[in-house]
Amino acid sequence: MIQQAIQSLHWDKSPQGLYEPIAYTLSGEGKRVRPTLLLTASKIFGCDEQKVMPAALAIEVFHNFTLLHDDVMDKAQVRRGRPTVHVKWNENTAILSGDQMMIEAYKLLAQLPDNYLPTVLRMFNKMGTEICEGQQYDVDFESRQDVTISEYLKMIEYKTSVLLATALQIGGYLAGATQTQQEALYAFGIHVGLAFQVQDDLLDVYGDPISFGKAIGGDICCNKKTFMLLNAFDKADVTSREQLYQLLQLPIDTPQQRSYKIKQVVAIYDALDVKQVAQAFILEQTNKACACLDQLPQNQFTNSLRELAHKLVNRNQ
Amino acid sequence: MIQQAIQSLHWDKSPQGLYEPIAYTLSGEGKRVRPTLLLTASKIFGCDEQKVMPAALAIEVFHNFTLLHDDVMDKAQVRRGRPTVHVKWNENTAILSGDQMMIEAYKLLAQLPDNYLPTVLRMFNKMGTEICEGQQYDVDFESRQDVTISEYLKMIEYKTSVLLATALQIGGYLAGATQTQQEALYAFGIHVGLAFQVQDDLLDVYGDPISFGKAIGGDICCNKKTFMLLNAFDKADVTSREQLYQLLQLPIDTPQQRSYKIKQVVAIYDALDVKQVAQAFILEQTNKACACLDQLPQNQFTNSLRELAHKLVNRNQ
Repeated sequence: MIQQAIQSLHWDKSPQGLYEPIAYTLSGEGKRVRPTLLLTASKIFGCDEQKVMPAALAIEVFHNFTLLHDDVMDKAQVRRGRPTVHVKWNENTAILSGDQMMIEAYKLLAQLPDNYLPTVLRMFNKMGTEICEGQQYDVDFESRQDVTISEYLKMIEYKTSVLLATALQIGGYLAGATQTQQEALYAFGIHVGLAFQVQDDLLDVYGDPISFGKAIGGDICCNKKTFMLLNAFDKADVTSREQLYQLLQLPIDTPQQRSYKIKQVVAIYDALDVKQVAQAFILEQTNKACACLDQLPQNQFTNSLRELAHKLVNRNQ
Repeated sequence: MIQQAIQSLHWDKSPQGLYEPIAYTLSGEGKRVRPTLLLTASKIFGCDEQKVMPAALAIEVFHNFTLLHDDVMDKAQVRRGRPTVHVKWNENTAILSGDQMMIEAYKLLAQLPDNYLPTVLRMFNKMGTEICEGQQYDVDFESRQDVTISEYLKMIEYKTSVLLATALQIGGYLAGATQTQQEALYAFGIHVGLAFQVQDDLLDVYGDPISFGKAIGGDICCNKKTFMLLNAFDKADVTSREQLYQLLQLPIDTPQQRSYKIKQVVAIYDALDVKQVAQAFILEQTNKACACLDQLPQNQFTNSLRELAHKLVNRNQ
């Protein structure tokens, strides 16, 4: 349904140089998690899909806009198995088409009935701001050596959770959920997002390279300040902290150097039980998420959210 | 008043890496033409400045966002006498802070009363889309040899006029102007914008380098498809068209080559009376703009718009 609605968006218009990259971006094989969350939240309250669809599409288009500009900033070459927009076209195209995609998201929002629009717009703006702030914190952390675990959690909350949470809240709001119910939906999204991201950090270290779909240890090689590394530093004594600092300096110019660095860092993670810390965190967040659902009407759609929460964090890819 | 309102926007918040470039961009010495137009349009109908101020600020912030991203795409080094954001910081900062600036514009809009917000949001979205489309047309024209005058006019209408026109329309709408009056305000902005841009093209060729503040012939050197060049091609016979094509191929590696190319192209413009064509167009658009004002209540604020129209096109800088 959501996939069909996305495909029915009309991009075959002039100037093609502006709209083709948007069509390309939206035709990628995304999982459509965010609009699905919005629709599901609205269905808990018996809302008609058509009523909330513009908001679901706005969320998906905005999400894809952030991916487009993030890929430029990260100089990423591939997205969902295809060349990124700035590779297939060029950087200026990626910037301008991305800008237009953000406006398209607001145009979709503006299709909502006038009596709902102002509140949804304000939720959407808050979300957009926090996503940009999260992205900036992520950039800032690269050059900082004193990032705390709580700062990291705030960053991933902004960068990942807020979009899920706002999608759910908007779905509930449009369907007539009470303020408390909206807050429960929002909190569900925050907890699921945190669990999801830490699961991602965990899979980078302990995932199965086949099912994970990418090489293990990517975060370790680039010294990325993940939940794993920050907790390792947090749990380490003076000796193993010093050892970890030394390992971060190791070069990764050859495959041998890469695998040596990964192996050594993982050995420290193992010794410090970082895997268990991450698993406990994921479990805690998933439980908190599910507890939020208890505050909502119980039906097949609430169950869908519960299943989704478990699926997202029990995934191996 | 508008300058004071812009300065009172609060950017001293975290993460600084995101907000400092926004503060920097907005602290530049802009003329604040667009928000002033919005305020003036609203005052024609006796509206209180405070009521429309969020929309005026939204327009100014959006305009500055477009300048920020345009400067990245154009690789411009200087804006309003200061280094551009991507020079002072870096490209990624300019992209992300620009994105946040667009969201800030929408946040300012969202401060409007709920009963006005949906309509203003839709006007704003339409404007944003046309500005992006105009920018894309401008890019497309660089590599096209068959750009017509009417295509050029549509491009500058989108890139320049629409922002002025929408500012005026929103000011009128918020102040209770009728649909017809809003359309007159919008049309005034379109005509003034066209006159303004063609005046810019004219000054690049026939301006006084001292008062214009930049070297004459910049557009000629980079073969920019301006109103002047497109009209020259339009008026030229086979011989002078061929001559013009030859001149466009000339190198501009040395100051001597630059001034030779400029001199030769201007000689063709002179022979073809392109200056008179441009002046006639500017006069026509200014007259059309002023005729729009006749449909509005006549008071000191309508007169301000009339004066502004004449000032913008009689400027020498």
